[in-house]
Amino acid sequence: MNPLALSLGDPAGVGPEIVVKAWQALRGSGPAFVVIGDRNVLAAASGSGAAILRRVTRASEAAEVFAEALPVIDLKLNAHVVAGKGDPAHAGAIIRWIETGVGLALSGEVSGLVTAPIAKAPLYAAGFKFPGHTEFLAELAPPSPYKGAKGPVMMLTAGDLRTALVTIHSPLSAVAATVSLERVVEVGLITHQAVQRDFGVERPRIAMAGLNPHAGEDGGIGREEIEVLRPAAQRLRELGVDCGDPKPADSLFHAAARSTYDAVICMYHDQALIPVKMLDFWGGVNVTLGLPIVRTSPDHGVAYDIAGRGLARADSLVAAIRLAAEMAERRGTDR
Amino acid sequence: MNPLALSLGDPAGVGPEIVVKAWQALRGSGPAFVVIGDRNVLAAASGSGAAILRRVTRASEAAEVFAEALPVIDLKLNAHVVAGKGDPAHAGAIIRWIETGVGLALSGEVSGLVTAPIAKAPLYAAGFKFPGHTEFLAELAPPSPYKGAKGPVMMLTAGDLRTALVTIHSPLSAVAATVSLERVVEVGLITHQAVQRDFGVERPRIAMAGLNPHAGEDGGIGREEIEVLRPAAQRLRELGVDCGDPKPADSLFHAAARSTYDAVICMYHDQALIPVKMLDFWGGVNVTLGLPIVRTSPDHGVAYDIAGRGLARADSLVAAIRLAAEMAERRGTDR
Repeated sequence: MNPLALSLGDPAGVGPEIVVKAWQALRGSGPAFVVIGDRNVLAAASGSGAAILRRVTRASEAAEVFAEALPVIDLKLNAHVVAGKGDPAHAGAIIRWIETGVGLALSGEVSGLVTAPIAKAPLYAAGFKFPGHTEFLAELAPPSPYKGAKGPVMMLTAGDLRTALVTIHSPLSAVAATVSLERVVEVGLITHQAVQRDFGVERPRIAMAGLNPHAGEDGGIGREEIEVLRPAAQRLRELGVDCGDPKPADSLFHAAARSTYDAVICMYHDQALIPVKMLDFWGGVNVTLGLPIVRTSPDHGVAYDIAGRGLARADSLVAAIRLAAEMAERRGTDR
Repeated sequence: MNPLALSLGDPAGVGPEIVVKAWQALRGSGPAFVVIGDRNVLAAASGSGAAILRRVTRASEAAEVFAEALPVIDLKLNAHVVAGKGDPAHAGAIIRWIETGVGLALSGEVSGLVTAPIAKAPLYAAGFKFPGHTEFLAELAPPSPYKGAKGPVMMLTAGDLRTALVTIHSPLSAVAATVSLERVVEVGLITHQAVQRDFGVERPRIAMAGLNPHAGEDGGIGREEIEVLRPAAQRLRELGVDCGDPKPADSLFHAAARSTYDAVICMYHDQALIPVKMLDFWGGVNVTLGLPIVRTSPDHGVAYDIAGRGLARADSLVAAIRLAAEMAERRGTDR
């Protein structure tokens, strides 16, 4: 299998240090990856300068050097970096690193893309128009060559839990109006196909969380379950997806409940992220479903508050790299 | 200490069977309680008829019979009960049982009130005007004789986690507009005082969950943290409450985070209930803060779907009874 690409993300965040730590954790066993980023930024974060780095020009060189050195496709930042200070001057390079990673993944030179965290503020200040990685990747990736529903859908995983999000970074006040029948059906269909294709579950069981307390209690606490979610579940079943009716979200995440499904459709960010981070605060993984390329990332942000101090943990990035390799393995050459 | 009162709740739900099971679990060790309800309903649920029941007329008789029999203050239902079928004909008795329990608690004849579950539909059909127990109890109880903020505030507890709710049974679409500065300050103040008075923590550390993903990310994902929650936290600190600024809700509930606070203010139902039910699906307890009486209840509903089949677990009710006794013990005679 070809190596993975790992885009360096925000150079002022914890990205550079967790990338180095992830290489230290994985150099012995793999999976191998090549960083798309600035070699000097990595050298500054490495603790031992550039000695551990190896500049490569092709991703295919990464595998053979990986045990000895951290392979980097060196695309210069050309701007000063102060740890913890996001800077719009970094935006151009951050975006180019992601674009390059997507290109390598689409061409098959790498088997998938893992992205280190980016922050919205410096990118927005430089004119970036996407709410986050997920939406930007969907824009970069052409329509999927496989027969199926098109993403992106954001999935967060931890342990045995896989959550697919109907809304992502919506203010809570906007969530209810954003949860439409069409979107829930789309998320359900993409999730069903991804759990088959990327997680190897032949007949996925999909659960659906209600939007309202007690899943609306038959309309007594909100009507979205009656008017949107139950019809969406019904439509999904008609499409061949084994999807249950919406259930109270507070009764969906203990171990016994989790054992009844392979993935759960969540309506908003914290409905999915609270359980994910309770199950594994450090090791959750963000997966983009429904793209032609494999893409994962850590489930945390740039953490400017601790950047550059050697405190950041690479657990989530390591888990993201491992999961990307597993997904790529399952997809095989049939991307 | 005087016994607790336990109102029987909806006779068509799981209440009667879990009340009998709770007595079986606690008859040896206590705490003692007296049921306020219909003796025939309990006899039907007991599995061994009326043999285990003892009709009493005063709560004070409960303690001496408790090891031998389940004491009941017998207030007749005068309506037929079909397990699993809520019936507006039950509403009058259900309400009377609660009112009687409140009266006994206010008079000091019992040391606190535990309420078995009620369902909204049959009560509403009979003209009941309150969203639930909590609001009804606040109406029944006169202004608190202790010097402090007045409730009710709903708290859900499980293990080391205590969550206080700013909104309870609001549809998700109504939550953001309902979260006001005044309400958050009120909840914070009542929670602070209750954690001192009822849970014995001298200097409570209060955490606050954000409303939006990433606690709004400095206004990028909703402005309520900036306009409502941070000012509320500031106001609480001015009032002497050790309350932190709002934090991302997904990072507040793993063990390391829980160890940093004694109670957390949550903005909506599932933000509190997802963590509570993940930590202890069967044993969570609902506590009403800021009342002149001690009041707890199980954190589950009437469960019509399994009522009368002997399947219901009494864990949550047993935990609620134990917690009520602990709270009453701490309040001592200074109610």
